[in-house]
Amino acid sequence: MVATMSFFTDMLQQIADRGRTLISPRRPSPRSYGELRALAEALLTNRGEVSGVARAAELLDGFAGASAKDRDEFLRALALDFGPDEAKVEEAIAAYRAEPGPHAAMKLHVGAEPRRQELLRKLNRTPGGTLALLRMREETLARLSEDRALADLDADFRHLFSSWFNRGFLGLKRIDWTSPAHVLEKIIRYEAVHKIENFEELKSRLAPEDRRLYAFFHPALTEEPLIFVEVALTQAIPGAIAPILDPAHEIVPEKQATTAVFYSISNCQKGLAGVSFGNFLIKQVVEELRRDLPQLRTFVTLSPVPGFAQWLRTETADAESAFLGPQERAALAPHFSAQGEPDFEALAAALHGDLGETVRTLAATYLVHVRSQRESGLERPRDPVARFHLGNGARLEHVHAQADMSRKGLAQGAGVMVNYLYDLDAIERNHEAYAERGEVAVSSEVRRLAKPHKALRELAAGR
Amino acid sequence: MVATMSFFTDMLQQIADRGRTLISPRRPSPRSYGELRALAEALLTNRGEVSGVARAAELLDGFAGASAKDRDEFLRALALDFGPDEAKVEEAIAAYRAEPGPHAAMKLHVGAEPRRQELLRKLNRTPGGTLALLRMREETLARLSEDRALADLDADFRHLFSSWFNRGFLGLKRIDWTSPAHVLEKIIRYEAVHKIENFEELKSRLAPEDRRLYAFFHPALTEEPLIFVEVALTQAIPGAIAPILDPAHEIVPEKQATTAVFYSISNCQKGLAGVSFGNFLIKQVVEELRRDLPQLRTFVTLSPVPGFAQWLRTETADAESAFLGPQERAALAPHFSAQGEPDFEALAAALHGDLGETVRTLAATYLVHVRSQRESGLERPRDPVARFHLGNGARLEHVHAQADMSRKGLAQGAGVMVNYLYDLDAIERNHEAYAERGEVAVSSEVRRLAKPHKALRELAAGR
Amino acid sequence: MVATMSFFTDMLQQIADRGRTLISPRRPSPRSYGELRALAEALLTNRGEVSGVARAAELLDGFAGASAKDRDEFLRALALDFGPDEAKVEEAIAAYRAEPGPHAAMKLHVGAEPRRQELLRKLNRTPGGTLALLRMREETLARLSEDRALADLDADFRHLFSSWFNRGFLGLKRIDWTSPAHVLEKIIRYEAVHKIENFEELKSRLAPEDRRLYAFFHPALTEEPLIFVEVALTQAIPGAIAPILDPAHEIVPEKQATTAVFYSISNCQKGLAGVSFGNFLIKQVVEELRRDLPQLRTFVTLSPVPGFAQWLRTETADAESAFLGPQERAALAPHFSAQGEPDFEALAAALHGDLGETVRTLAATYLVHVRSQRESGLERPRDPVARFHLGNGARLEHVHAQADMSRKGLAQGAGVMVNYLYDLDAIERNHEAYAERGEVAVSSEVRRLAKPHKALRELAAGR
Amino acid sequence: MVATMSFFTDMLQQIADRGRTLISPRRPSPRSYGELRALAEALLTNRGEVSGVARAAELLDGFAGASAKDRDEFLRALALDFGPDEAKVEEAIAAYRAEPGPHAAMKLHVGAEPRRQELLRKLNRTPGGTLALLRMREETLARLSEDRALADLDADFRHLFSSWFNRGFLGLKRIDWTSPAHVLEKIIRYEAVHKIENFEELKSRLAPEDRRLYAFFHPALTEEPLIFVEVALTQAIPGAIAPILDPAHEIVPEKQATTAVFYSISNCQKGLAGVSFGNFLIKQVVEELRRDLPQLRTFVTLSPVPGFAQWLRTETADAESAFLGPQERAALAPHFSAQGEPDFEALAAALHGDLGETVRTLAATYLVHVRSQRESGLERPRDPVARFHLGNGARLEHVHAQADMSRKGLAQGAGVMVNYLYDLDAIERNHEAYAERGEVAVSSEVRRLAKPHKALRELAAGR
Repeated sequence: MVATMSFFTDMLQQIADRGRTLISPRRPSPRSYGELRALAEALLTNRGEVSGVARAAELLDGFAGASAKDRDEFLRALALDFGPDEAKVEEAIAAYRAEPGPHAAMKLHVGAEPRRQELLRKLNRTPGGTLALLRMREETLARLSEDRALADLDADFRHLFSSWFNRGFLGLKRIDWTSPAHVLEKIIRYEAVHKIENFEELKSRLAPEDRRLYAFFHPALTEEPLIFVEVALTQAIPGAIAPILDPAHEIVPEKQATTAVFYSISNCQKGLAGVSFGNFLIKQVVEELRRDLPQLRTFVTLSPVPGFAQWLRTETADAESAFLGPQERAALAPHFSAQGEPDFEALAAALHGDLGETVRTLAATYLVHVRSQRESGLERPRDPVARFHLGNGARLEHVHAQADMSRKGLAQGAGVMVNYLYDLDAIERNHEAYAERGEVAVSSEVRRLAKPHKALRELAAGR
Repeated sequence: MVATMSFFTDMLQQIADRGRTLISPRRPSPRSYGELRALAEALLTNRGEVSGVARAAELLDGFAGASAKDRDEFLRALALDFGPDEAKVEEAIAAYRAEPGPHAAMKLHVGAEPRRQELLRKLNRTPGGTLALLRMREETLARLSEDRALADLDADFRHLFSSWFNRGFLGLKRIDWTSPAHVLEKIIRYEAVHKIENFEELKSRLAPEDRRLYAFFHPALTEEPLIFVEVALTQAIPGAIAPILDPAHEIVPEKQATTAVFYSISNCQKGLAGVSFGNFLIKQVVEELRRDLPQLRTFVTLSPVPGFAQWLRTETADAESAFLGPQERAALAPHFSAQGEPDFEALAAALHGDLGETVRTLAATYLVHVRSQRESGLERPRDPVARFHLGNGARLEHVHAQADMSRKGLAQGAGVMVNYLYDLDAIERNHEAYAERGEVAVSSEVRRLAKPHKALRELAAGR
Repeated sequence: MVATMSFFTDMLQQIADRGRTLISPRRPSPRSYGELRALAEALLTNRGEVSGVARAAELLDGFAGASAKDRDEFLRALALDFGPDEAKVEEAIAAYRAEPGPHAAMKLHVGAEPRRQELLRKLNRTPGGTLALLRMREETLARLSEDRALADLDADFRHLFSSWFNRGFLGLKRIDWTSPAHVLEKIIRYEAVHKIENFEELKSRLAPEDRRLYAFFHPALTEEPLIFVEVALTQAIPGAIAPILDPAHEIVPEKQATTAVFYSISNCQKGLAGVSFGNFLIKQVVEELRRDLPQLRTFVTLSPVPGFAQWLRTETADAESAFLGPQERAALAPHFSAQGEPDFEALAAALHGDLGETVRTLAATYLVHVRSQRESGLERPRDPVARFHLGNGARLEHVHAQADMSRKGLAQGAGVMVNYLYDLDAIERNHEAYAERGEVAVSSEVRRLAKPHKALRELAAGR
Repeated sequence: MVATMSFFTDMLQQIADRGRTLISPRRPSPRSYGELRALAEALLTNRGEVSGVARAAELLDGFAGASAKDRDEFLRALALDFGPDEAKVEEAIAAYRAEPGPHAAMKLHVGAEPRRQELLRKLNRTPGGTLALLRMREETLARLSEDRALADLDADFRHLFSSWFNRGFLGLKRIDWTSPAHVLEKIIRYEAVHKIENFEELKSRLAPEDRRLYAFFHPALTEEPLIFVEVALTQAIPGAIAPILDPAHEIVPEKQATTAVFYSISNCQKGLAGVSFGNFLIKQVVEELRRDLPQLRTFVTLSPVPGFAQWLRTETADAESAFLGPQERAALAPHFSAQGEPDFEALAAALHGDLGETVRTLAATYLVHVRSQRESGLERPRDPVARFHLGNGARLEHVHAQADMSRKGLAQGAGVMVNYLYDLDAIERNHEAYAERGEVAVSSEVRRLAKPHKALRELAAGR
């Protein structure tokens, strides 16, 4: 089997080599907005595929080299002037009116396709085109908050990327200390949860036999990981991050590990916002790990609760808070009243004292009962990490105070971390319950911990 | 650079391995039409991506195992019942009417998207899905001539395949005698121009240093070539195919070759009809060859004229033929009057005699002056091979009688073969002239040879 | 781990590429005996390593292109004139006499080294040198029987090859239907036990999931397998070869196989005679199979008994045979009296009748009791296949009559085949008993079957 | 071609994988000297190859884990007690005396082979054995200066390593920023000429397009480079090292480079002392570079003169110095009189002043005229770097003062660096002249610069 694969994988070399050969001599070469627009129009009217590729490359290089102003104008033009051809739209509507039905409706679909979709597809045919388009969308997204006119362009990007980056085309790759330096460099750059300072620190996450890192790649984007997850192999479910990150931790022989801990998941490409791979990644990594190490029994995360501190601040400030009693508010006030950074040392000390258990209870409450996000018509947990794992079918298993005492951990999550458990027998059921009915899977421990809404509590308290 | 590539190409192993692991235990497992349809509906309404993948696999396996009747019903259902959602269409039209403009037009596009497009995208996410969809389209195409209702489904397939099989994702691979046997087996199976009987015959096309074979592959379809071209390295432009195919031909040391002859191009996947790679393939192979063997000066085909014999029969039967004079018709009549196969021996003998030059003249005429195909509003040569190469920017350089005296060569092309020349300095110009104005590039030799239309000839001859 | 390996394996590409680049333009270019000899002398006196490589290449190409007579003279010169330098030998003996001891003895070793050893090491430094030396030894071996003068040269070849082809440098490679055609071609060529006619037949041995083929390769000889073994995965120990070779056999799903049958082992390189890999190969293949398919319980051969028919002929002709009784001799006589080929049909019929059991008993007797080969001062089984497997620590498990009814099987082994069982718990013990004390491991079934020596039988019979 | 290679290179994966699998669970497990010795004896008398491999592994692991004292005793035992078998030596001498001639001399060679050679060959058969033996020789070398008894053992190591590490088995590999991190880590560790601090600094030597690094690897030692060379692509022959090492140097587009500068060559394996690869490496790298970048015209080193400062100190201290005049001695005395480190600032200032030209002249003199090393009966330059490059056939082209003003550069070479030119047309001739007659190739510039010996100067000066 290896032999076949080697053969076919050479093919990818060809893709990538061609990309390099053709791209590297190409350097960003500035074009004005007018020139870019003319190239785009020419690409759409041009009948020849090969000259089209050359023109597409010229456009992409020209855009990369253009001034911010010209780029901005060009993106706006894509959004506003390369939409559907209105004459064709009218014609298709008339035809549909004349003879409604699926065939005419499909003609309507085709007739109303934004012209930029074809343009983007043509740009994608040039070597290196996919990466250039990703970067173009990054720029679109960055400007989107100020310029809603770009929303239609962004929607087309997302639509096309969903098709091109479909999971059937992705490859899972284990990254380790034998991986190429320039890929490792990107892991350092893209790690978003627990920062990596340099190669030596990275080595401590990759080289020990009780550590794993897996990433998804796309064949046309061979040097850019799309998303990656870091895994620690342990003998128990961990309740704090520091021992995991400790370069001097005692190494567990891989054959003796019982538990795989997903302790960091990072999306790498802003340009792929809205095209999600995370659930596929976790489930495929679970499969890989089970194949390699059949004795593994538990698959669990050690996850931050990034919005928890902010929520504590809001509730503490809110005298009517449905979640806090007076004592709790008093205890929290010194640390969570202001918007600014807390006094980290004081907070840490308090967490090691009585505040720890209070915070733990409130974190469970926050995760289980605080909902605000609506999705598919259902209320979802406010916490984005919770939405991700619960949506994947995981169960909220444990809540730990004093689990991440780094400044970031304190500032965002008040030191709390949690475990989401991927119980293979329950994933599908949990996922369906979440997707269909908005139910979240929670261990009995956490359920007991989570204080229900004040009204319910009062009710329970006998008024 | 090699190291990187090795690294990244391992990724493809993962894609392919996963494909194998998951597919091979999967066997076609029959589902009824009703079950297939229910699965398709569930896939479209399902909110979970991962359970979606399992369901998609079940549908694809179920289709593969279903009875012909159930498959047929399912394809018709895709074509007729999984079109656009008409309520949404109406809504989108109303919105557009209320506030016309690009944004509303785009909503119209989105609202009128056939539901099957999303279904096909979801099916494509399952390992092996791409191949299964290709096979599903093959079946659609096979039924299309009898059942025009499938045309919309087919159009959606073509649309999606154009996006997924865009050239930026394809890999060019040289195939030689060191390639894996199971790929070579497919080359034998897919060779469509000059049949290959077995591995020994294949070896004579791959192993000598004056032979090359290049194919395009797609990363998600690693065991299936998409298209391939066979190349002979020679010291002159050849005028007949037999010496090229002769296993005992005298081998030209590759460094002494001056000419690369593309003597066979085969599309491998019927399911990719309408998604063309040929021009990219030829141009990329030219680049590869020039890099490896910088002394190569001439890039040329040795091509059949597949519709020529049929045209001769039609013209011979037509007393009013604008192209044949009385002597010509008389000379041709014994061989080209009937619809059936000619008397090959008699035809071969005649071609070696006077008929050779007549046929050569008429072949030039046919290629240069006979147009019937309309494309982009322009008249195109009737001959499909001519359309392909002239459309790529090649020039019709030489016409040879007695060039392919095999039964197939006589039956289809009256023994004629031609050379299309890929002159790198002229390709772009030729291509534009062809694409924009319908002009075909022809050498002065062939131009002299090609008899203009009868009316013009008469005009020229006597007035 | 994969990534590393890819990286390092690229290195081998370099070795091999360099080999190709430099070798392929080199063609055998005849040199006379005198020239070859002068090159050899120059190589030994030359002080420069790089010019040495060029000269070595010239010598090897010159030898490859030389006339048979010149080659013969050159090999004789290597054997006779490139032995130890006698002046140095005398000097070293004198020094040893003056001051005996390990240091002086080592100087004696160095001083008495045949000059050709250094020559062969220098020749081995040139790209492609290892293969050229293998071929040179093949030629030496071919002439050795007529020209014992070559024995010393041959001994030096064997000595050096043992060092260069040591097991630590060999790579085990699974060969399957996805392997390169030019390697498969060599498998066809080198298969020595059960002939393979063509690629189609080979496919039936490689492609089904219940078949395996493993080979050893050496990094400097990448296109030449050294030895390979063919394996069938079954659900019982087989008693005949035909069902194994049957392309239409019912395929056992690999996960359901319980038994791995080694049914063909072929040495590929005559030039490596005396450098044995077989036992390493079998043991490593057992390890591979156990890793891939942990449910496998039984590892066994299905082996020929190549000298059995000849032994039957000898014993049948010998009225005093210690192994045959009168009835047995009478039954065997029609089939095993003459030296020529037996009447295959008659023999087959007889084997299917009463003769079958007689032959089976005698085969067991032959394998267990007939010893003639002396090795390390111990008597070894006469049968070479038995020596190989019993020497590896296997146990003779079953003897089957009518097991190989092909002409070759009848002519060499009277239709008998046997199973040697590789019982992992017993291998080491069996091997030691065989190596140290000459004991052979035999199942109780075979032990009962094997008739002891006539004298013993008579003794047992009470006269 | 690629496909084949991929296939075969997988084989190497197998070698390396097996190595890993088997080695990594093996951990150094201490054995006493007595146990090690018993294992060694058992290995030599054992008849079974497979149990031999297990025993060999046990010995190597046991040695790795043993105490320094036990290891020392074991190495001494190898040197003293595992030499030739003296009884066999006597027997072989007697046989030679009885019938002298090449055959008996060869028997003498075989009979006098130290027993440890066979032992080392057997140890080499175990996975990872080659590396373990390299490390064992490192230890032998480290003790050799104090314990000359180890010299015979060392000689056997060198003899066997020369055979196993012969150039035909080595692979040249370009190392770049896409290479595996754990290999790059070793480059950092082994760089011996211009120290590399960390990955970032390494990147500046690998990543720019005007930098190259090539290494030799051996297939059985895939993670250990044997030797590597660093190359800068420039547009002129450089006269100082700082601009080469400057991470912010202006990058020369590779296609515009005219000159390849070999500015650092490092041997990586102390255990391979005496087995030289350097000349092969340089010549093969020149070939690689010429193939990739045919426009390169000049191949040159920028080399240190490591023994020059020491020589200056010796000559300065010697009132009778044949090379220094009174003024020169006076100028040098402040900087080169003491044995300790010079005052670097003062020395640097002086070199920028008048001392620069004096030192340059003396460096030329030192390199051209100071000989002390005898090799093959000829006087060789005292400077080891000069011996290496001149021995390879290079020409001493330029001498630069103030070329390496680092502390190391000043302390060892008084700031001087030189260029050795690899003129492809002259290499062979230079090499022969050096090897056969002890002549060194020197440019006319350097020849003029080099002051001849004092006596000659006086003679020339007319007394």
